[in-house]
Amino acid sequence: MKREWDLLHTPGPSPVPPSVERSMNQPMIGHRGGKCKELMNDIAPRLKPIFGTSGEVLVVTGSGTSALESSVVNITQPGDEVIVVVAGAFGDRFAQICETYELEVNRIDVPWGEAVEVDQIEAALQERPHTKAVFLTHCETSTGVMHPVEKAAKRVKATSSALVVVDGVSSIGGAGVDMDQSGIDILVSGSQKAMMLPPGLAFVAVGDQVWNVIDDNPRPRFYLDLRSYRKQLEGGQTPFTPALSLLFGLQQVLDLLEEEGLDHVFDRHQVMKEMTREACRALNLPLLVTDEAASSTVTSIRPDTFEAEQLRKLANEEFGLILAGGQKHLKGEIFRIGHMGYSRPSNVLQYIGIIEIILKRLGHDFEQGAGVAAAQEAYLKRTREE
Amino acid sequence: MKREWDLLHTPGPSPVPPSVERSMNQPMIGHRGGKCKELMNDIAPRLKPIFGTSGEVLVVTGSGTSALESSVVNITQPGDEVIVVVAGAFGDRFAQICETYELEVNRIDVPWGEAVEVDQIEAALQERPHTKAVFLTHCETSTGVMHPVEKAAKRVKATSSALVVVDGVSSIGGAGVDMDQSGIDILVSGSQKAMMLPPGLAFVAVGDQVWNVIDDNPRPRFYLDLRSYRKQLEGGQTPFTPALSLLFGLQQVLDLLEEEGLDHVFDRHQVMKEMTREACRALNLPLLVTDEAASSTVTSIRPDTFEAEQLRKLANEEFGLILAGGQKHLKGEIFRIGHMGYSRPSNVLQYIGIIEIILKRLGHDFEQGAGVAAAQEAYLKRTREE
Repeated sequence: MKREWDLLHTPGPSPVPPSVERSMNQPMIGHRGGKCKELMNDIAPRLKPIFGTSGEVLVVTGSGTSALESSVVNITQPGDEVIVVVAGAFGDRFAQICETYELEVNRIDVPWGEAVEVDQIEAALQERPHTKAVFLTHCETSTGVMHPVEKAAKRVKATSSALVVVDGVSSIGGAGVDMDQSGIDILVSGSQKAMMLPPGLAFVAVGDQVWNVIDDNPRPRFYLDLRSYRKQLEGGQTPFTPALSLLFGLQQVLDLLEEEGLDHVFDRHQVMKEMTREACRALNLPLLVTDEAASSTVTSIRPDTFEAEQLRKLANEEFGLILAGGQKHLKGEIFRIGHMGYSRPSNVLQYIGIIEIILKRLGHDFEQGAGVAAAQEAYLKRTREE
Repeated sequence: MKREWDLLHTPGPSPVPPSVERSMNQPMIGHRGGKCKELMNDIAPRLKPIFGTSGEVLVVTGSGTSALESSVVNITQPGDEVIVVVAGAFGDRFAQICETYELEVNRIDVPWGEAVEVDQIEAALQERPHTKAVFLTHCETSTGVMHPVEKAAKRVKATSSALVVVDGVSSIGGAGVDMDQSGIDILVSGSQKAMMLPPGLAFVAVGDQVWNVIDDNPRPRFYLDLRSYRKQLEGGQTPFTPALSLLFGLQQVLDLLEEEGLDHVFDRHQVMKEMTREACRALNLPLLVTDEAASSTVTSIRPDTFEAEQLRKLANEEFGLILAGGQKHLKGEIFRIGHMGYSRPSNVLQYIGIIEIILKRLGHDFEQGAGVAAAQEAYLKRTREE
């Protein structure tokens, strides 16, 4: 079946809105010319509210991982002590990067599917008073947990002098983070999730207070040296040739987000989460994550009467519905639904409707239509409250 | 709300697949050059199976109505007697065109929402043995009735020498018509319905046996003179500058239809019809048309507990779901759902899911989720039978 019939509901890459696709299809421009400066000067300040900061949001051409790495190499030196909360594949990646750069990594291992408790972080900091930075994941894409990063950052700031770095790759643009208010020093993200773009851009929001650390850091780095990005941005430029079509698309994404209003965007994601979770309950599909810890951009289901991979296979073959599987030790154990970016409550009605048909094929026990009804009820309840 | 969030389910224009959109965005070519000839020579034979004919399918740049008019002006002279079956707004348009061209029009008026009976046509022909042509509508878009045009054409051919002209604007590409086998002389259609293109192209399929009538017809006509289209097509051309981007798109549409297989395409439309109708029954929504007469591309609902226009308004405002209203005396009485072209069973699950939410808002009495469950059941039943 043609790709264009697909219903893409993985937790990134996520669907690209047609107007963004069109915006990307523009003639190339010189990246040192006036048109590119205009573009960068337009984009840069408009990214700030999305990251909840008055600091600079630097745009790096690269995968989300390049943004993660940039945060590590710009603030640490070999031998620095850091704390990394690892509650899934992406927390683990943060730890790997830190190890690669010869940091002394203290992992806080949290069972996959659970959120870290702020007290755990405080306790770890008390044990290691020289901790240079705490690395947190906002939405752990591999489990669908949204960690309490704002609360955690406040506690870190109140009880230590450590920096706080947050991976917001699968949340930013879909969930609000008040970076400045909560004391997060660096918040990174990527283009291909709630930011509604294809992969290829990474975002690094840097709090004003952290630049002295970055400026004084002697560690060698070149492509990911945030000082170059900040310096070039003053002149509306990037240090290296940027992925121009993605920048064209980003400008249109900003239009879409501003037109809808960020609060509405974040609410829409909350509603999609609630609809999805209520539907799963009605369909006797066990949720991996508690309500309190659940992400508004991705939901993980751990089926107990059929193979997760079988559901994914049938949904893909029969309806072009693309769901994600589990990662690492959750492989084959869970399936994950992305509801982020160019996605809305009617998409939830659609994928739940499809999943019900596949559940019927798999012989799962449930009342036909009950999942959609529960999703509708969650939607109606939310809008009644408004 | 941005147009790109819309869910377009009117009975045309219908959504354009992304690959077709992309195909249309190509640099212009000279319409007398080799590239255009290649294009036309590729398109022309591939249209024939869609119209069920070995005759020529001529491509006119114009609305569907231009194709209707071309059928009238090419085979009739002033004073000719014709029979027009009028069972809705588009049968009425056929009659208007015939009157404009000074034909003696004998209308067979059928109540809107019902299909014509073949016996009625035979009886009318017996009363008017000099009838030059019978004009029929395949799918009457204004009501969602699919008239038995193949059966009717066979009867006309068996009992008279009249020509048979069929308006297939809202069916061709979504429902099969065997033009040659049934004896239909001219079958016309447009680009913006089941053919998955924007409006702007009209198709006129002409049976080989009717060319002597067209060639001998002295009525003055220029833009719509089918002789010019046939003559130019021999050289891979059109008599006048064609809507080139739509031709680029048409080539991609043919790829999509051939890749899926016409039988599968027509079955898909049948399944969408059955899902929609079963859902309506489960939701206590009265269907305008009986199962026997119902179209596979459009479904009309005549609500009795709320205003049709109110449902359309709310569905549009809240979900961007665009449904059609009634036309002429059915205005405000019915709403119509298009399920044609770039649409599939999962779209039905989606629009029924949305309609249920709106019905709740309107205080309509039904069991939440019952419509989606019935649509799922209709889908499962159909696929179990395979």
